[in-house]
Amino acid sequence: MSPKNILSTEQISQHRSPDDCWIVVDNQVWDVTDFLEEHPGGSTIILKYAGRDATKAYSEVHAPNVIRTELRPERNMGALDQSTIDNEWLKPPPSASPKVVLQHDKPPLHTLINSHDFETVASSTASKKTWAFYSSASTDLITRNANKSCFDRIWLRPRVLRNVRSVDTRTKLLGVDTSLPLFVSPAAMAKLIHSDGELAIARACESKGIFQGVSNNSSFTLEEIRGAAPSADLFFQLYVNRDREKSASLLHQCSANPNIKGIFVTVDAAWPGKREADERVKADEDLTVPMAPSKAKNDKKGGGLGRVMAGFIDPGLTWEDLAWVRQHTHLPVCLKGVMSADDAILAMEAGLDGILLSNHGGRNLDTSPPSIITLLELHKRCPEIFDRMEIYVDSGIRRGTDILKAICLGATAVGMGRSMLFAVNYGQEGVEHLIDIMKDELETAMRNIGITNLDEAGPHLVNTADIDHLVPNSASHPYARKVAKGRRSRL
Amino acid sequence: MSPKNILSTEQISQHRSPDDCWIVVDNQVWDVTDFLEEHPGGSTIILKYAGRDATKAYSEVHAPNVIRTELRPERNMGALDQSTIDNEWLKPPPSASPKVVLQHDKPPLHTLINSHDFETVASSTASKKTWAFYSSASTDLITRNANKSCFDRIWLRPRVLRNVRSVDTRTKLLGVDTSLPLFVSPAAMAKLIHSDGELAIARACESKGIFQGVSNNSSFTLEEIRGAAPSADLFFQLYVNRDREKSASLLHQCSANPNIKGIFVTVDAAWPGKREADERVKADEDLTVPMAPSKAKNDKKGGGLGRVMAGFIDPGLTWEDLAWVRQHTHLPVCLKGVMSADDAILAMEAGLDGILLSNHGGRNLDTSPPSIITLLELHKRCPEIFDRMEIYVDSGIRRGTDILKAICLGATAVGMGRSMLFAVNYGQEGVEHLIDIMKDELETAMRNIGITNLDEAGPHLVNTADIDHLVPNSASHPYARKVAKGRRSRL
Amino acid sequence: MSPKNILSTEQISQHRSPDDCWIVVDNQVWDVTDFLEEHPGGSTIILKYAGRDATKAYSEVHAPNVIRTELRPERNMGALDQSTIDNEWLKPPPSASPKVVLQHDKPPLHTLINSHDFETVASSTASKKTWAFYSSASTDLITRNANKSCFDRIWLRPRVLRNVRSVDTRTKLLGVDTSLPLFVSPAAMAKLIHSDGELAIARACESKGIFQGVSNNSSFTLEEIRGAAPSADLFFQLYVNRDREKSASLLHQCSANPNIKGIFVTVDAAWPGKREADERVKADEDLTVPMAPSKAKNDKKGGGLGRVMAGFIDPGLTWEDLAWVRQHTHLPVCLKGVMSADDAILAMEAGLDGILLSNHGGRNLDTSPPSIITLLELHKRCPEIFDRMEIYVDSGIRRGTDILKAICLGATAVGMGRSMLFAVNYGQEGVEHLIDIMKDELETAMRNIGITNLDEAGPHLVNTADIDHLVPNSASHPYARKVAKGRRSRL
Amino acid sequence: MSPKNILSTEQISQHRSPDDCWIVVDNQVWDVTDFLEEHPGGSTIILKYAGRDATKAYSEVHAPNVIRTELRPERNMGALDQSTIDNEWLKPPPSASPKVVLQHDKPPLHTLINSHDFETVASSTASKKTWAFYSSASTDLITRNANKSCFDRIWLRPRVLRNVRSVDTRTKLLGVDTSLPLFVSPAAMAKLIHSDGELAIARACESKGIFQGVSNNSSFTLEEIRGAAPSADLFFQLYVNRDREKSASLLHQCSANPNIKGIFVTVDAAWPGKREADERVKADEDLTVPMAPSKAKNDKKGGGLGRVMAGFIDPGLTWEDLAWVRQHTHLPVCLKGVMSADDAILAMEAGLDGILLSNHGGRNLDTSPPSIITLLELHKRCPEIFDRMEIYVDSGIRRGTDILKAICLGATAVGMGRSMLFAVNYGQEGVEHLIDIMKDELETAMRNIGITNLDEAGPHLVNTADIDHLVPNSASHPYARKVAKGRRSRL
Repeated sequence: MSPKNILSTEQISQHRSPDDCWIVVDNQVWDVTDFLEEHPGGSTIILKYAGRDATKAYSEVHAPNVIRTELRPERNMGALDQSTIDNEWLKPPPSASPKVVLQHDKPPLHTLINSHDFETVASSTASKKTWAFYSSASTDLITRNANKSCFDRIWLRPRVLRNVRSVDTRTKLLGVDTSLPLFVSPAAMAKLIHSDGELAIARACESKGIFQGVSNNSSFTLEEIRGAAPSADLFFQLYVNRDREKSASLLHQCSANPNIKGIFVTVDAAWPGKREADERVKADEDLTVPMAPSKAKNDKKGGGLGRVMAGFIDPGLTWEDLAWVRQHTHLPVCLKGVMSADDAILAMEAGLDGILLSNHGGRNLDTSPPSIITLLELHKRCPEIFDRMEIYVDSGIRRGTDILKAICLGATAVGMGRSMLFAVNYGQEGVEHLIDIMKDELETAMRNIGITNLDEAGPHLVNTADIDHLVPNSASHPYARKVAKGRRSRL
Repeated sequence: MSPKNILSTEQISQHRSPDDCWIVVDNQVWDVTDFLEEHPGGSTIILKYAGRDATKAYSEVHAPNVIRTELRPERNMGALDQSTIDNEWLKPPPSASPKVVLQHDKPPLHTLINSHDFETVASSTASKKTWAFYSSASTDLITRNANKSCFDRIWLRPRVLRNVRSVDTRTKLLGVDTSLPLFVSPAAMAKLIHSDGELAIARACESKGIFQGVSNNSSFTLEEIRGAAPSADLFFQLYVNRDREKSASLLHQCSANPNIKGIFVTVDAAWPGKREADERVKADEDLTVPMAPSKAKNDKKGGGLGRVMAGFIDPGLTWEDLAWVRQHTHLPVCLKGVMSADDAILAMEAGLDGILLSNHGGRNLDTSPPSIITLLELHKRCPEIFDRMEIYVDSGIRRGTDILKAICLGATAVGMGRSMLFAVNYGQEGVEHLIDIMKDELETAMRNIGITNLDEAGPHLVNTADIDHLVPNSASHPYARKVAKGRRSRL
Repeated sequence: MSPKNILSTEQISQHRSPDDCWIVVDNQVWDVTDFLEEHPGGSTIILKYAGRDATKAYSEVHAPNVIRTELRPERNMGALDQSTIDNEWLKPPPSASPKVVLQHDKPPLHTLINSHDFETVASSTASKKTWAFYSSASTDLITRNANKSCFDRIWLRPRVLRNVRSVDTRTKLLGVDTSLPLFVSPAAMAKLIHSDGELAIARACESKGIFQGVSNNSSFTLEEIRGAAPSADLFFQLYVNRDREKSASLLHQCSANPNIKGIFVTVDAAWPGKREADERVKADEDLTVPMAPSKAKNDKKGGGLGRVMAGFIDPGLTWEDLAWVRQHTHLPVCLKGVMSADDAILAMEAGLDGILLSNHGGRNLDTSPPSIITLLELHKRCPEIFDRMEIYVDSGIRRGTDILKAICLGATAVGMGRSMLFAVNYGQEGVEHLIDIMKDELETAMRNIGITNLDEAGPHLVNTADIDHLVPNSASHPYARKVAKGRRSRL
Repeated sequence: MSPKNILSTEQISQHRSPDDCWIVVDNQVWDVTDFLEEHPGGSTIILKYAGRDATKAYSEVHAPNVIRTELRPERNMGALDQSTIDNEWLKPPPSASPKVVLQHDKPPLHTLINSHDFETVASSTASKKTWAFYSSASTDLITRNANKSCFDRIWLRPRVLRNVRSVDTRTKLLGVDTSLPLFVSPAAMAKLIHSDGELAIARACESKGIFQGVSNNSSFTLEEIRGAAPSADLFFQLYVNRDREKSASLLHQCSANPNIKGIFVTVDAAWPGKREADERVKADEDLTVPMAPSKAKNDKKGGGLGRVMAGFIDPGLTWEDLAWVRQHTHLPVCLKGVMSADDAILAMEAGLDGILLSNHGGRNLDTSPPSIITLLELHKRCPEIFDRMEIYVDSGIRRGTDILKAICLGATAVGMGRSMLFAVNYGQEGVEHLIDIMKDELETAMRNIGITNLDEAGPHLVNTADIDHLVPNSASHPYARKVAKGRRSRL
């Protein structure tokens, strides 16, 4: 290794960002950009000396020649021109600046190793409004938190000494092959966090072989998404418009789009929930979406995108309207947002193709039941439903073990919404990375529980004893009649 | 936009409060008072430069001309007279001062979006003593905290695909129409937080169509309240005086006051509870109330207003006294503070018109049962009571979902006490805003659970499985006789 | 009011402690010693200016003449001699000093309003070793914490509209009248926190009419205690010595001492528990106690007083030895430290006079059952015991409601140990104040639950539903035989 | 005492480490090295003045001559040569330096008094990677935390007045005498924390008379371990290699090694778990182990040693392979990692010699059941197993009471893994100290529960009521068939 150049302090000082970071040690200039994240001591301490002389800090913790064994010769950019040393050069580094630099900087994608990491990164790199809109949930966040904690309270019952050399996560959803029992739950406005938004999700789903649920409030049209990912499998999430013609038109578009394999009619958001974190941050009033007449605005209640963008949804939707939906499409029709066995039974009796047990990620009505509790309610009150229709679950899925628990309890597949939005922060590659992580976690869980394909999953592999007492009984509550009668008789 | 004036640094420096805030950017002087709370970056950073030159801070985060697009031309107050710049002007702003300024300053009312917000604001803007008196509860706060957490542990059972376009929250209370199943629970001395005190509450209740419960320890007389809100519906909360004549006189006043629709005799405060936060803050010994012989004082136990103001209440009150109450009024008589099914049954047998299940907001006897547990106890032990009298609930109501849960479980209406006091912090407008918030939350909850009027509410819509085990059985405990017998036989 | 003196800065500076505090406001010198704790803004801010000129700080928050209305004329000590102002006088006050002054200073006794307050004060004013010895408990503190939390999980079932004008807390303990169902649980070495130690406790118990349990490891002899409080009611807590003669001698002393009404033989400390906080602080090796051969020392396990002082206790004590105890005294004999219904039954069958359900304050064996759980176990497994002997409870009593709950569940009286040690921090007066507080809390709880004497207390007034599932069944566990058999057959 | 020398400031300054610490007080030089840890005020404050003049700090808190009574005369090293005082000497001590000195310095072994202490010390003194590898567990750490908390939720049922003068903790494991029902659970790569690694563990186990489980990924070979501790009792933990010949060769080595008393085949790690803390720290790629073909590396998933070192393990291992194991050894064969009664029954039917209920310390599959829950499951579903084979338990053992609880519930012995690794931080002596602590805690628990040998332990001495509801029922779940059938019929 020999110095290629004599470099002035001014030249060196230019290279002081995480993307282009030089340091000086013992008068040699090193490009450590690629080394930043590999540094066992972390990148922060190196960035503190970006574009500066790090000799003193270096020698406090390293033997003299370690740098030459750690870095390849071509990383040596030359020698410091000592005649250019001035007072500015000799100043100690500002202690606060690297923090500022890093704050809005996303860490390298491969350092994110689970779904929580994507959320953490989004919380500090997305805009304040985007974070508020994506992460917020209804009022006191009780349902949002219980969605996850109820999964955590289910114990697995692992079996040992099964041959688990090869494991197969494939299944079918709406009759279509999918590589995982996982889909992207429809969620609005993915463009807020990345300019490619739903296009990036579609490309990632296409490459990984899973379904994307496209939101009625998507930042892109169905045609744009199809253009981006011509062979992706999609389903469309419909909010039925007060103006039925608009919804009919959307249904026709869907029916004509060969990528779309089903329609999910959202039923758990008859009225917009109160997402207070969202309300507290002012909205950009220029915001619109292409497939709905929504337009952001700030009113006396606040700046809640979740509320304002939902203004067109018809709160008058009833079971009768589902027949109308059927008239406008040949595609399978499912309900998104079933929260009780009673409505699951009605859906079954109405001949629907599937139901997605969901509470909208805890975003609509606080103290709605966690989805996994509703899944257990189906076992208790209408087990025959598992023969009759597909059951999906979302709200609270963060781990491969969560997916496995839902499948063991009879779900066909599960959806992830918020986590996928947080992953689009890194574009298509981010979503692909998250799908890979979920697949790896699911396979690891399947192997360690002793199964190799999803048909082997069943209730015998989970222990729900810690939450069984929360599962409600028949809705014909013994108190019900009495109270209603009392109220009437007194009035 | 053209400068109207040449302004000296001294003139500019006058405008440095949240109510009157000028800043200088690029030698232009702007009045940003109205912009403070709209500033996406928050008001604090602007207030730091109130009456000062903010050019440097501004240019660090904004493009040069943003200010001209954000503010209307008339907000430009003139140009800085640069000849007046002196050393004082050039000093950096004191970092601590804006915090001091803001600390006792209430945020704009419309930024408060739930009942918790009113509590938060009161905690930092009410006087130390007022906060202590209003917020304190008995000893270890176990009941106060359980009041809320038991509501949180009840899950809703939402139904979907019901037509919920229009929703009706009206009901009757004591036979009188009310716009909401919500009333203001009687609470003492509202004037401590706002000079209009109960007058402001009365006006707000009148305009919003709900009942106000007037405390025996109100800061104003019934006549004053009637004067302020001539058509308000009121009920009067009576502490029976050791001197019965005083109470009789109050009952006569009530009976003659057409606004008053009922008498609520408080029975859960036979002896003043130990509210330690209240005791620890010295009381203003000039404090009195007009309808009771109470006078604040500081004694060797502390400065507890709750304790001292209760000194006139008769701890000898019994069921027999209720007949005496009836003799002095033709109005419906209800009990406030029933905490067991046993006493609810006695009240029913005594022919009372209603009972308010309450533990005085956890303020009187710690580890008293949460009110919602007592409501469940009625279902378990005397369900016929719902046919026979009105059941009200207070203590722990903070959300529209809490109201809905109580109604589903048979309550006629619920009360909010502390939250309303915190809202009077903003006068009549504050109470109106809180009522609006509660109405909106209730309507949202009704729609999302799938009902459009309160008659449809019933136990089938809630899942109390997480707290059912806490509901006590019959008081004829199997241990009871044994212990009493053992004790007698040994003595 | 007229100045009595012209005072120099040097004279004024002498008065700068919490016991003797002068300040200067507007050139007038005030003695504010008595005012310190009445100051609504707290004493700290005044102490900051002790012996100094407080004019500036004063005028920032007060109107000019408030001081003359707040303080009586005789508190004015004179006028400042302005000719004596020097640079030292003009310096700002040191910001840290008042904190140092206050840190080891006990707040005035009357500002302590519950048992927790005594603990808080002791934690910052007792020596490190004393705090460690008094407050520590066994290993992970699970039992210590559960002792309290199990009381907190019992709900009261208050009854209303009972005449509770006068309330009577008197009862009998060992056949002797006592003013409260409360006694001082025997606890070792009260002198560590106050030079009067057990003498102060004895005087307080005598004046308040409650029992003192004197520890075998008391800092004073029984004769000294009798000398201090000639008419106090005592019981003696015996650790049976490996050298039986020593214990026999103590029993004879007790029998000859008319103040002593009973012997409590400790049975829950067969072996010293592991109190890690105690072990971690070095002990003063000069420490001894008069009625036991104990001597503090530091060994390879640490400096645990609890362990080392227990070295003389015989781990070989059995039921047979109780007959030996009976031989040496005519006094009633009770067991201290029963933790199961099984042993309670054996004690009953052995004809003992009483049992104290206790786990030694969680100090001996971690995960021992909370005493209140053991009390419930008696109800479940041997309810007849309440007819046959007195049942006492300690470990975890902190509130009047805790006392009431134990009494309702059949206890004759309850003991407080640690809290009383923390109260001796203030000598006799401190213990009296704590007893007064407990009496007031108990009376308040009795009144608010609707009873006026302890005979009315019973299980019908408490709801133990939240902890009932923790109460164990018969010890003839179905697994027991199987496991023992399996172990034997394999060996 | 007379000064032996006149010492210069330069000489004194040499002695400034915790191992060699002089200070100057009143011009006398003292060697306080041995006194450091005895100092009631802690060692930090003294170390701050190591090699310096401490007179000022000393006199602030001590009377003048205390030092002469605390320290023996020979600790006086001489007098300060005041002529050598220079500016450097007069500088105040650097406030941060002692912290730096102490941070990577282990406190004296005898100050560690429980297993948690070893973990705390390791967390700050082991390398970042070692700490990550040892302490990490699978994904959300739910199982790791529940392992301990489930032990904490079991109450003991102590019996009193039993003669517990002498207590015997001996038992048999695999037919071999052991001094304690405790063994070192096999854990990989003990050399990471101490150069003696498994050799130190072996010597400690030999001297204390307990079993060492040797990991397949041990840092040393079986022969090396035997060389270090010729009479130690060992068992070997086998990961079956994809290349069966390699495992057969290891089994032959074990069979020929007289120290080895049994083979434990690990079955709970069919696939490496996801230990995220381990993945996030870069591994040293030179790391290898002698008895497995493992080699550390950093790949796109991270630097997880747990994952990478497990690469050779065969995920295809089945019950049939156990016959193959039997063919290659005459030693008893046990399974390590049974997590269900179903597999325990299969192991019993397969004629194995024992099973270790374990979830790999929560390191492999998160939400695997806590081991103590599995032990209870055996009681519920196959109590006869306790007659048929030895049952061991590990995962979560931190206290003597934990050992006792497992023994009471039928375990033959329990293992500790991580804690032992943390103890090797101090070499052989550290492990011996930890074993002594566990023995002392176990004996204390046995005595205080009222038993003197392990045969007396049984389920009648524990109360599992708080966790009984978590124990699963038969795996033939009523839902199981339905779900599987539904899934098949829909596909």
